[in-house]
Amino acid sequence: MTTQTIAGSAQEVRKKIRSNAWRGITSGVAPGHVQANLAILPKELAFDFLLFCQRNSKPCPVLEVIEPGNVEPFITAPQSDIRTDVPGYRIYREGQMTAEVDSLVEHWQDDLVSFLLGCSFSFEPAMTDAGISLRHQEMGSNVSMYITNIPTTPAGRFSGPVVVSMRPIKRDQIVRAVQVTSRFPATHGAPVHIGDPAAIGIKDISRPDFGDAVDIYPGEEPVFWACGVTPQAVALNCKPSLMMTHTPGMMFITGQRDADYAVL
Amino acid sequence: MTTQTIAGSAQEVRKKIRSNAWRGITSGVAPGHVQANLAILPKELAFDFLLFCQRNSKPCPVLEVIEPGNVEPFITAPQSDIRTDVPGYRIYREGQMTAEVDSLVEHWQDDLVSFLLGCSFSFEPAMTDAGISLRHQEMGSNVSMYITNIPTTPAGRFSGPVVVSMRPIKRDQIVRAVQVTSRFPATHGAPVHIGDPAAIGIKDISRPDFGDAVDIYPGEEPVFWACGVTPQAVALNCKPSLMMTHTPGMMFITGQRDADYAVL
Repeated sequence: MTTQTIAGSAQEVRKKIRSNAWRGITSGVAPGHVQANLAILPKELAFDFLLFCQRNSKPCPVLEVIEPGNVEPFITAPQSDIRTDVPGYRIYREGQMTAEVDSLVEHWQDDLVSFLLGCSFSFEPAMTDAGISLRHQEMGSNVSMYITNIPTTPAGRFSGPVVVSMRPIKRDQIVRAVQVTSRFPATHGAPVHIGDPAAIGIKDISRPDFGDAVDIYPGEEPVFWACGVTPQAVALNCKPSLMMTHTPGMMFITGQRDADYAVL
Repeated sequence: MTTQTIAGSAQEVRKKIRSNAWRGITSGVAPGHVQANLAILPKELAFDFLLFCQRNSKPCPVLEVIEPGNVEPFITAPQSDIRTDVPGYRIYREGQMTAEVDSLVEHWQDDLVSFLLGCSFSFEPAMTDAGISLRHQEMGSNVSMYITNIPTTPAGRFSGPVVVSMRPIKRDQIVRAVQVTSRFPATHGAPVHIGDPAAIGIKDISRPDFGDAVDIYPGEEPVFWACGVTPQAVALNCKPSLMMTHTPGMMFITGQRDADYAVL
């Protein structure tokens, strides 16, 4: 495995991953292409999970659902294979991680339903294009993520709090940040909160629950977006007999473009 | 039954419908409140139908799904009852209408899942507010609807063509009509086609498949939006053992406001 980045189209990159020629963090890979979070669950939980995502579309924006037993995301990446084309996978049983693997081929079951969910990698380039710099990129670190006191709307067996990502934004750029990210509802969309972390149950902004802490400078406010960690956290919270996901940071690269998902 | 309109809040109107004090076409009733198409299916078809709606969100925008056996739309209209609060219902067995009834109480089953889907009643006021007049309203007729050659993306047992509604728009107002309706993705959103009906498989614009024909004046183009008739047509096409719907024009009136669903 290498952590260096890789050039090429989405299809070329997926082929290199499938053939074991490259594995790594996908940030910046195949620029302009939509990357996706992956959650795989048994069919018996699929309706509840899809309904959960429908009720909570800001943290859980569904890009594609692959029907039971099928492995090809025919809408977002025809001819790809969800079992082999992600750089790394995690397998959870009863809510506990039991394995981290390079391929799901040997672990596949005919009753598995795969969910591809939007990722904020799609709106970050639009923010930098608009002149809004991203602190975690400047610092070379992961974005800060926090468990909030904002409840999701439960569905069937699934419930739990919304997880958010935070980016410090200069006060005179907050309006622009709202506008730019509003154009991408399929990848978390507009912020869920601006300013005071305590108002959404975050006790210490310097201690994120996931990712890295970043500096907040004078003249900036912390701005919070619904985060794709939410669906995995909520799904694991219900301790499904089996759940498979991507390894964090190693996303599925679709053949669709960020611009395909922009509204207005 | 009376076809005259009725004043009052969404809650008051639902109460009058429930108590049999009023039944009628809901166009213009409880202005500003989101109205919804209703489709009720057995649980065994619920995952496929929800996935079909997710894959075809322009014709099939899901506002709420009520879980198996439950009758209260707790998100869009708390304390209401989906079995009694719609002015009229149709019952279909094996794809054939077998009854038209005022209440579903005696027909209810514990395995039924109710889907509330967006309706273009929510973007039409925004169009008239923007100075775009609606020919079917001027003519006092129903909107024209057509079966197209645009395929939906199939899911499980569900497939079929997209049904569209058509509104003639002055050429210099087409851009504004696109902008205004784009703000309402939960109620069909932006048009799917502008101009030439033949390009989407409509042979004779003067003979709609549903609703009434309307005049198209010189200087206007026919503009087509995805239509909420699509999900019912597609669902009936698969001849489910049981399906219940609202009677056309007699929608479910939610407690939510059109503005709650506007983006940007």
